[in-house]
Amino acid sequence: MQEIKDGGVCAASGFRAAAAAADIKGKNSGKLDFALLVSDEACETAALFTTNRVKAAPIQYSANLIKGGAKFFGVAANSGNANACSGKAGLSVCAEIVSAAEKAAGLNAGSLLAASTGVIGVPLPSEKMLKKIPLLVGNLDDENGRAFAEAIMTTDTVSKEFAVLCNTESGVYVIGGAAKGVGMLEPALATMLVFITTDADLPQSRLQTALEKAAALSFNAITVDGDMSTNDTVYLFANAMSGIKPDLFQFEEALIYVCKKLALMLVKDGEGAKKLVTVKVCGAKDDRQAKLCAKKIANSPLVKTMFAGEDPNWGRLVAAAGASGAEFEPDNISVRFDGLLYVANGELVDPSLERKAISVMKKPEYLIEIDLKAGSSEFTCYSCDLTKEYIAINADYRS
Amino acid sequence: MQEIKDGGVCAASGFRAAAAAADIKGKNSGKLDFALLVSDEACETAALFTTNRVKAAPIQYSANLIKGGAKFFGVAANSGNANACSGKAGLSVCAEIVSAAEKAAGLNAGSLLAASTGVIGVPLPSEKMLKKIPLLVGNLDDENGRAFAEAIMTTDTVSKEFAVLCNTESGVYVIGGAAKGVGMLEPALATMLVFITTDADLPQSRLQTALEKAAALSFNAITVDGDMSTNDTVYLFANAMSGIKPDLFQFEEALIYVCKKLALMLVKDGEGAKKLVTVKVCGAKDDRQAKLCAKKIANSPLVKTMFAGEDPNWGRLVAAAGASGAEFEPDNISVRFDGLLYVANGELVDPSLERKAISVMKKPEYLIEIDLKAGSSEFTCYSCDLTKEYIAINADYRS
Repeated sequence: MQEIKDGGVCAASGFRAAAAAADIKGKNSGKLDFALLVSDEACETAALFTTNRVKAAPIQYSANLIKGGAKFFGVAANSGNANACSGKAGLSVCAEIVSAAEKAAGLNAGSLLAASTGVIGVPLPSEKMLKKIPLLVGNLDDENGRAFAEAIMTTDTVSKEFAVLCNTESGVYVIGGAAKGVGMLEPALATMLVFITTDADLPQSRLQTALEKAAALSFNAITVDGDMSTNDTVYLFANAMSGIKPDLFQFEEALIYVCKKLALMLVKDGEGAKKLVTVKVCGAKDDRQAKLCAKKIANSPLVKTMFAGEDPNWGRLVAAAGASGAEFEPDNISVRFDGLLYVANGELVDPSLERKAISVMKKPEYLIEIDLKAGSSEFTCYSCDLTKEYIAINADYRS
Repeated sequence: MQEIKDGGVCAASGFRAAAAAADIKGKNSGKLDFALLVSDEACETAALFTTNRVKAAPIQYSANLIKGGAKFFGVAANSGNANACSGKAGLSVCAEIVSAAEKAAGLNAGSLLAASTGVIGVPLPSEKMLKKIPLLVGNLDDENGRAFAEAIMTTDTVSKEFAVLCNTESGVYVIGGAAKGVGMLEPALATMLVFITTDADLPQSRLQTALEKAAALSFNAITVDGDMSTNDTVYLFANAMSGIKPDLFQFEEALIYVCKKLALMLVKDGEGAKKLVTVKVCGAKDDRQAKLCAKKIANSPLVKTMFAGEDPNWGRLVAAAGASGAEFEPDNISVRFDGLLYVANGELVDPSLERKAISVMKKPEYLIEIDLKAGSSEFTCYSCDLTKEYIAINADYRS
C-alpha cells in the first residue's frame, strides 16, 4: 500500500468530477459550492448516514434509494446550504436537482445520490444550481478531484483529500476520498461529508461491512455516535474498473488507513483548532467503557480549553474519566503526556515534571494516555483544542 | 412566602458564619477562601453529592459521616483548591482541618462536614488553613452570610445568596442559602457548591426528599445528571430553632423557590456568560424525553454560540433536538422566541420575522419554547451563551 500524491476522489480509475460556483455561498462569492462526482461504470455503493432524528432532504432522498442495494454512478453535492429542516419542498428540490444532473449526464433516473452541507432551515437556491448543471456535466474530468474537495468546504480552511494504491498479485487497485467538516469535534453538530471511491471489485455487502469497520476507528473516533448533524454522510463507491477482486482483509486495512487519514485532517482543521491531541484510554474493563471514557475526555470543553491553554491540569482529565461511566479506582489511574509518566496511582509523580509536560503540550500534535488499570481494553480517539476562534466562527457567522 | 433582602446562609435563626483569607488562592491574594458555617443547635442534614466516580476528599469524608443519618452543626468550606485527586493524604488533611475546627468551636468530633472547590490535583495548603481556624471561630457571627458566600467563590464574578421567610399559622420560619459555580453549564465539570439553612423543624428523611425534588427542578436543570465535577455538593441544614414544624408541601414549594433562584444566579454568572436563556421543551412523549431534549438543546455548543451571536439560526435548535433521542416528527415541530411563533410545522413561518427574533435574542434574558407535538410532557432548563470569555477563563487560568 502506498500513498498517492494529491490523490482524492478521482484517483481510482473511471471516476470524474466537476465543480462550479453556483452562488449558494452568497451572490458573486465566486466560491465553489456545487459539485458532481460520476463513475464511468455503475458502482456497488456503501453508505453511512446521520443517526439524528432530523435528517436533511438529501439524506432522506439518498437513504431511500440506497436501501434497495442498487448500483449508483455517483453523487451531486453542494455546500453553503444543508437543505435541512426544509420540509417536503426541500425533498422535491433535491430530487429535481439530482434528476436534472442525471438527464444532463445521460444517466437513468436513480443513478445519482445527493449530499448537502451548510446553513439549516433556509431554502436551497435551486434555480441557481439547475443553471450550473450543463457546465458541471461538460467539465467532468479525472483532474477535478481537488475542485470537488473544495466545493464541499464550509468553515473548513483547507480541502481534504487522500488516496492509496494497493498492490495485489493480479495488479493494483486504488482507494481515494475527499472529506469536509467536522466543525468542532462532538458534542457539536457541524456536518461531516465523506466521499470515498475505489476501482476495486467488491460486492455491496462486503463494502458496507468494511465501511462500518473503518468508520468506527476513524470518523466515529472523532464524533460520538448518536449525536450527529442533520447531514452527516459517508459514501463509498466501488466501480470494479481495476478488475481486481481484493483480499477482504487487505481492502479493509487500506480503507481504514484512508478513513483515518481523512478523519485526522478533519480534526486538525477543526474550527479554531491549533492542536491535534490523540487521547488513548487503556486498561479499561471492556471495549465499551474504553470508548466511553476516551470520548468523554476528548470531548470535554474543560479538557479542550486546557489543550488550548497548554496547561497540564491533569485533574480535568481524571474528572472527565470519572464522569464517563467507566469503572476504575481513582487511586490506580495513571496519565502520560507523550510517554512522560505524569500521574501514577492517582497522584502527581513529581511537581518538577510540570515543565516537561508543558513542553509536550506546546507541540502541535501529541499523545495523552490514560491507564484506568481496570482491565485490558483500549480505545484511541482524536481531539483538538477549543479556542476563542471556535466561538468567533460559530457566533459571528451563520453556519 | 416573602424574600428577605440580602438574606443568605445566616438568615435563618441560629446560624453563624465566618470567613478568612488563608492564601489558598495564592500568597497574599487577600481573597476570602476559607469559611465556617455553624449552627447553635444540631441540625437534621440532607445532602446531595457528585455522581462522578472520582470524588474529592471532602466528599468522601462527608458522605461517609452523613450516611448514618447523624445530626451536624455545620460545615468547613474552602475555595482555591478542590482537594480532589489528592489520594489518602488529601483525605487525612480534610479530616485534620475539620477536626481542628470542631475542637476550636467546642464541638464533638463528627459535628462538621466539609466542602472544597478550586484546582484539582494540587495538595491542600493545610498549614495555612489550620492557622486561620482560631480567627474563624472567634469571628462566627450571623452578620457574616455575605462573607461566607464570597469565600466559596472561584471564577464566580459575584457572590450568590438568597433567602425567604415563610408564614405559618404558628409563626414564621426561614430558608436561605449561598451558592457558587457552575463554570459553564454542563457539559463542563466546574464545581457547584450550595449551602442551604433553615430554622424549620423537619426530620432528616423529609428534608432529603424535599432537597432531591428541589434539586431536580433547579440545580439539575442547569447541569446534567451523571456528569458532575469531583466536588459538587448541596447541603441543607435544618436546626428547628424557629420551633415551626412546617407543612411539607409549603416547605417544598419554598425550598424549590430558593433553589431555583440560586440556580439562576449560577447560570447568569456562568463563565463568560452574558445571557440567561430559558429553554422549555413541551409536547414531549414522556418526562424523560422532555428532559433529555431540553438539556441537549441547552448544552449544545452550537446553540450556545448562537445565543452569543444573537442569531435566530433555528436549525441548530432542531438539529440538537433531533440528536437528543426524543421521539418527534421533524415536520410537526414549532419554535417560539419569547412567544413569537418563528417555526411552525418544521418550517420558518415567515422570513420577515427574523428581525423580531433577533431583537428578542438581543435581550439579556429570554425564553425559547420548542414544541415537539409528540405528547404532553414538558421540561424547562436554563442555559447561557458560550462566549470567547469562557475560553479565556478556562484556557488562560488554571481552575
